[in-house]
Amino acid sequence: MISITILGTGNVAQNLFEAFLLADGVEVLQVVGRAADRMEFFKHRTTLVTYEEKLDPTDIYIIAVTDDAIREVSDKIVTSGLVVHTSGAVGISMLETHERQGVFYPIQTFTKGRILDFFKIPLCIEATNENDLKLLHRLGSSISSNVVPIASDKRRALHVSAVFVNNFTNYMYTIGAELCKENQLDFSLLKPLINETVEKLDFLDSFVAQTGPARRGDLQTLHTHLSQLKSKKHREIYTLLSNSIKATYPIKKDKS
Amino acid sequence: MISITILGTGNVAQNLFEAFLLADGVEVLQVVGRAADRMEFFKHRTTLVTYEEKLDPTDIYIIAVTDDAIREVSDKIVTSGLVVHTSGAVGISMLETHERQGVFYPIQTFTKGRILDFFKIPLCIEATNENDLKLLHRLGSSISSNVVPIASDKRRALHVSAVFVNNFTNYMYTIGAELCKENQLDFSLLKPLINETVEKLDFLDSFVAQTGPARRGDLQTLHTHLSQLKSKKHREIYTLLSNSIKATYPIKKDKS
Repeated sequence: MISITILGTGNVAQNLFEAFLLADGVEVLQVVGRAADRMEFFKHRTTLVTYEEKLDPTDIYIIAVTDDAIREVSDKIVTSGLVVHTSGAVGISMLETHERQGVFYPIQTFTKGRILDFFKIPLCIEATNENDLKLLHRLGSSISSNVVPIASDKRRALHVSAVFVNNFTNYMYTIGAELCKENQLDFSLLKPLINETVEKLDFLDSFVAQTGPARRGDLQTLHTHLSQLKSKKHREIYTLLSNSIKATYPIKKDKS
Repeated sequence: MISITILGTGNVAQNLFEAFLLADGVEVLQVVGRAADRMEFFKHRTTLVTYEEKLDPTDIYIIAVTDDAIREVSDKIVTSGLVVHTSGAVGISMLETHERQGVFYPIQTFTKGRILDFFKIPLCIEATNENDLKLLHRLGSSISSNVVPIASDKRRALHVSAVFVNNFTNYMYTIGAELCKENQLDFSLLKPLINETVEKLDFLDSFVAQTGPARRGDLQTLHTHLSQLKSKKHREIYTLLSNSIKATYPIKKDKS
């Protein structure tokens, strides 16, 4: 049995808690938190502790808080056990005051009130010693089918990629929705297109799958589109991304 | 029975052909094309005609060719029947030499060799007279559950939105894949994240769903990310999109 303390009560903490609840050989002995409303989620399901109270010893301490709070929370833990954080962007060295450090980073976006099936979520693990890496592998495998050891520098690169495919993509949806709203159009008309854009990834490299006026070098449509965009912000983004796509796919000139 | 001529043999033409084949009350009498390899798709399934041959009369002529070839193909049709194109970006007036003009625009991205289920694909229709609009509604409803009359100016706005949610989103995937490759990381690690970003749209407005360092105003992570990006192009895109997200979600200052 691997005993766990979860420090943090937000979306990542809640999703990990639910996943561990269904896992064999893992027990969440205590959850440490501050916000009363979020503590409610764990009530009567495990022991609730505040940051001021003394913690019972567990095998692993999982710090699932915002990046800039990791150091502060880490410094409150007194243990010879394994201390890990769940961040994609923060190096393992943030936990340097502890003898045994690790990272347990699920590559996923978590939303308030939404519990995901962890089985398909890739888990990046890292540890400062081999035995702890094995321990994290065992812990990860209890909830996910995809546990990957990845060092801090590569995990950071993965995190930047995640910003492009998740944060920026979501922002493209927001702009699309803004344009629909401006023109009294129902954004849901674009949903099948959005779904297909993603489904294509399963059988076609996105580089090959690229379509659209910029890909075709269709200057006429690019100009018409720009003239339709009322917001300067939208025009700047449209221009930069179109130019960048154009440069990525240079149009061959006629041989004549 | 609605009789159809399809002009064009590309992805849109092939997908429409397959959909009409399964539809009640619709018959594709002939397909007009040039490229022998793409004509192969329709062989022995309908009558194949070249642009030089005389066409048999049909109720509707569907021009499914690239935007800049619509005018040329349209000018070759001699008919008193209804002539429509399938483009999101081109106005109905491109068909002005015909008495009866229309648009039959499926909001979807079509890929070579991939036949989609049309039932969920929204079809935007437009016509210069009421009876033809009804005819296109009947035709559309034979293959799709979502047929929407939309005038040319709004259809163009929808098309610009489609560029953001489809073309630009796909480009974000390409950048994510490039960053993974640079760092010897498996892009498929990001697939569950990409899927969840889309699934969220079904229950959460993308404006509300926005996460990431720019959304949080986390300048430290923004700077770290920028310093990791080796390509100037990636840095420019990261900067513009992050600044734009930051401006969209201004951080409240402390009242102190």
